[in-house]
Parts: sequence; structure tokens; C-alpha cells
Amino acid sequence: MSLMDQTRADEVIVTRWNAGSLSEQSDELAVEEPLEIRVRGQAISVTMRTPGHDAELAAGFLLTEGLIHQAADVLRIEPCDRNEAGNLLNVILAPEISVDFAKLTRHVFAASSCGLCGKATIDAIRANFPRVTSNVVIDAQTIAHMPQIMRQTQETFARTGGLHAAAIFDESGKLLVLREDVGRHNAVDKVLGWALMNEKLPLNNHVLLVSGRSSFEIMQKSLAAALPIVAAVSAPSSLAVEFANESGQTLIGFLREGRMNVYTNVQRIRFSVEPK
Amino acid sequence: MSLMDQTRADEVIVTRWNAGSLSEQSDELAVEEPLEIRVRGQAISVTMRTPGHDAELAAGFLLTEGLIHQAADVLRIEPCDRNEAGNLLNVILAPEISVDFAKLTRHVFAASSCGLCGKATIDAIRANFPRVTSNVVIDAQTIAHMPQIMRQTQETFARTGGLHAAAIFDESGKLLVLREDVGRHNAVDKVLGWALMNEKLPLNNHVLLVSGRSSFEIMQKSLAAALPIVAAVSAPSSLAVEFANESGQTLIGFLREGRMNVYTNVQRIRFSVEPK
Repeated sequence: MSLMDQTRADEVIVTRWNAGSLSEQSDELAVEEPLEIRVRGQAISVTMRTPGHDAELAAGFLLTEGLIHQAADVLRIEPCDRNEAGNLLNVILAPEISVDFAKLTRHVFAASSCGLCGKATIDAIRANFPRVTSNVVIDAQTIAHMPQIMRQTQETFARTGGLHAAAIFDESGKLLVLREDVGRHNAVDKVLGWALMNEKLPLNNHVLLVSGRSSFEIMQKSLAAALPIVAAVSAPSSLAVEFANESGQTLIGFLREGRMNVYTNVQRIRFSVEPK
Repeated sequence: MSLMDQTRADEVIVTRWNAGSLSEQSDELAVEEPLEIRVRGQAISVTMRTPGHDAELAAGFLLTEGLIHQAADVLRIEPCDRNEAGNLLNVILAPEISVDFAKLTRHVFAASSCGLCGKATIDAIRANFPRVTSNVVIDAQTIAHMPQIMRQTQETFARTGGLHAAAIFDESGKLLVLREDVGRHNAVDKVLGWALMNEKLPLNNHVLLVSGRSSFEIMQKSLAAALPIVAAVSAPSSLAVEFANESGQTLIGFLREGRMNVYTNVQRIRFSVEPK
């Protein structure tokens, strides 16, 4: 299996203006299309995603929603055969899996309480997934090298400039899988769905690397796979840092050009400081 | 009123590693917290947003969902007084506004059809908002200058590196309003909510500029305010271009360093090409 299968890109003609000079050129666009995920005949999500690795996306979404936990929980994932566009997936779960459809409406998950705040939200998520206790320690140099590996593997980004990426590395710095998507949360669902379907869970000694920023949502998804270290090329949000503190995860930001900021649980990073 | 009021940032201590040198430094984080929006006692949205301009965010969200169309449709927007964290807003609508709660569950809006595809999605949105017919024409030089104005006004980004921005400019290139948020769609809702509450709608002769990429969601929101020109600093998705074609909007991408790509409806841009 390729680490990074080709992701579709659309070609268009564009009017390009550059320092007073005008031309018509062809340009490749990152593809964005809706995907509907159905479980037991009921739609549980419509997400705007880049087509490709849709079964992984669906599996990862169900994992990070706390509905499934292992490959055996999914019997099969199949397109709806009346849907020619390929934008509708049926996930056939093992019969013993119970589905709480009310719990899946997470966009209003805190609606019944008037104490809505970051803390309450984190507590609600934490109730679903245990705190990370991994003792893995990884060299700072190994982590600092990961963005370069990600970028070299990110084929569609190079052509379109329009895709986020997520990747899983092992403790030696080896890339296991990389996926691209117009939505960063979809790219994360795809790599976690890949890990679930390939029986790599829990990811106790691994690093999740995301392009761009880290947010509450990225941390919540990573905890579903027990990832001890999450690294992002850009800044974290306040709630990402707060979440990582409470979940016991190591959160790294601004991982670029041989630099990094470690926001939480720095004990998992081994720094080799050069003598001055 | 200031074009860009101060947005909150949280301060943390971070372990910084840079070319083999280790230090502890303070770092500012973009704040991310959930906001619940309620209409007539019912929660219609929970979004992770950067606190500040929450009433604008709520108004913009209701506008882009097609629920309200003018300032008079909203009597007032007030925090729930039992919610100390300030993360719950009640929107009091004029009594004549009818609310179709089923329609607001847009995350599954296409769930009843098996013909789910980009085209069907665009048609569903297009039914709510008319096609743009503005005859405005703006100089390419005027548009090329907008990202610089946006970046100079973006205070919190400079401190945290973690915020998206959206801004509205008039046809002379004057900045009307700029808002920052951890979510790009929230930043867009905030500037459109500002426009609604200040009776600037429809924005027939204006430009919406967003940091980062343009997507289906950004285009859909901009059409709710009748914006003829949408510009983004980075790439558009395939569905953003398709949407702009069908809605009659001009879509610009890669607007940076005196360059731009015009993907659709180029007749609204006046290019002054220098003789070779």
C-alpha cells in the first residue's frame, strides 16, 4: 500500500495577474465534495471533504465520536449503489454495537446545561476516552524532521496549495500514513480510520502531525486513538493546550525549520542541547 | 467604533527549542471556547470560536442560514444570565419571523436524497439566495493592496499566529470591518453580522477578503450578503469555484505579493496592464 495515494484534483483555466502582467493559465484545484455517512439507515454526518479514502474517513469519524473502538466493530463500509457521485457511504456495524443517535448530535452536545464553558466541554469528552499514560520518549531531532517528510509526501498540496495534511509517525520517526483533505479534521479522521482498519490502535508510542493549527477538535480526535504526542506546524488554540494538560498529552506547536514550542507534558521529548 | 477591537489572548509558559538551544518563554494563545446560540429557547448551534463580537457572530450565523435578512429581524441578543462563562447567547427575534428548526440542521440537510453531490448542494443553497448581478468594477491594484491592509489591522494574529481573519472592503479599497477568530467561518459570520446590524446589507459593491483558503462554506455565507467579489489569500476548493460560477460571483485566490488568480466572473476586475 502506498503511504499517500493520489488524491483527485480538478483542472480549471484561471486569469493570472502578476506585477501588472496578465495571462490565462491552467490551475489545479483541491476537490471539495460532500460526503454523507450513514449508520443503520440513518445519516449521522455530512462533511465537505476531498474524495478519496472515504472508508477511512467514515471509520475515523466513528472512532473519534466514541461509537467504535476496533476493526472488528465494522463489518464493512460500502457506497450506496443508487448514488452515482459516490458521496454516500453505508457503514455496516457489528450487530452487538449499540448506537446512541442522540449522542452523535455533538454540535449541540452541551445544549441541556447552562454552564457551557471550555472546562465542561473537555470533561464531557474526557468521560469517553481515558487519560494518556504512555511513557514514550522521542528525540527532539526526530520530531523536528517530521514536517519535512510530510511535505515531501504531500503530492496534491504541491499541485493545488489547497489541502491540509495529517500524518502518523512511529517513535523512530518513520511515517506510517499520510492523508490530505480540504478539511484538517477530515485528514485526521482518515489517518485514524486507517490505523483502526489496520489494527494499529492504540497508538501508544506515536506522533500525530497536522499541517496548520491545533484546536480542541484535533486534540479530541487524537485522544480517541490514545496518541501521546500531537504536533502542529502552526499555533495551538487556548483550548487545545488546556485539553492536552487534562488528557496527559504532549502538545507541540510551531514545528518548523528546526524549531518547536512544547506546551504540555514536555517529559516525552528528549532534548540534546549543544554546549555553548 | 474601532475597525478591530482587541481580541482576547491567553498567556502560557512554553518550552522553546531552537537549533539545539532550549529556553522557557511566555507565549500568547488565540482563545478558543464554545458558543451556544439559542433561538426561542432552542439551541441551534454550538461553535468553537474566539470570544468577542459574539452578537455579530450570532447575527451573521442566522443571516447566512437564511433565517434573518435585516437588522429589524433581531430585537436583541443577550447572554444567558445564568451562564457566567458568557458562552451562551439568546437571540430574541421579531415575532413575525418564522423559524424552521428542521431547516437549521444543515449538517444533514441533504440526508433525504440519494443524489448527494456538489451540484445538488449548490442548488439547495441557491434556492435560498438570489444570484449576484452587481455591475461593480474594481481596479486590480486596489484589490492587490487589501491583504496588506488586513494584516496591518490584524492585531491578535501578530501576537498568537493562531487566528483567521475576514474583512469587508468597499469599492474604493477602504476597510469597513475586520474580525479575527480561530474558525474562518466564524470570522466571516462576524463581519456579515456587523454588516447586518449596521444596516449595510446588501453588500452590492463590496469585497469579502479571507485569510487562508476559500471553500463552499465561505461562498455560501458571502452569497447571503450578496457580495459580488470574494478574495482569499490562499487557494480555492473545486466547489468554491463551481459555486461562484453558478452564483455569478467573482472569486479570487492567491491574492498576495501583488499577484492574484481570478477564477470566475473576471469582468468585475479592471486590469491596468503595463506595456511590454
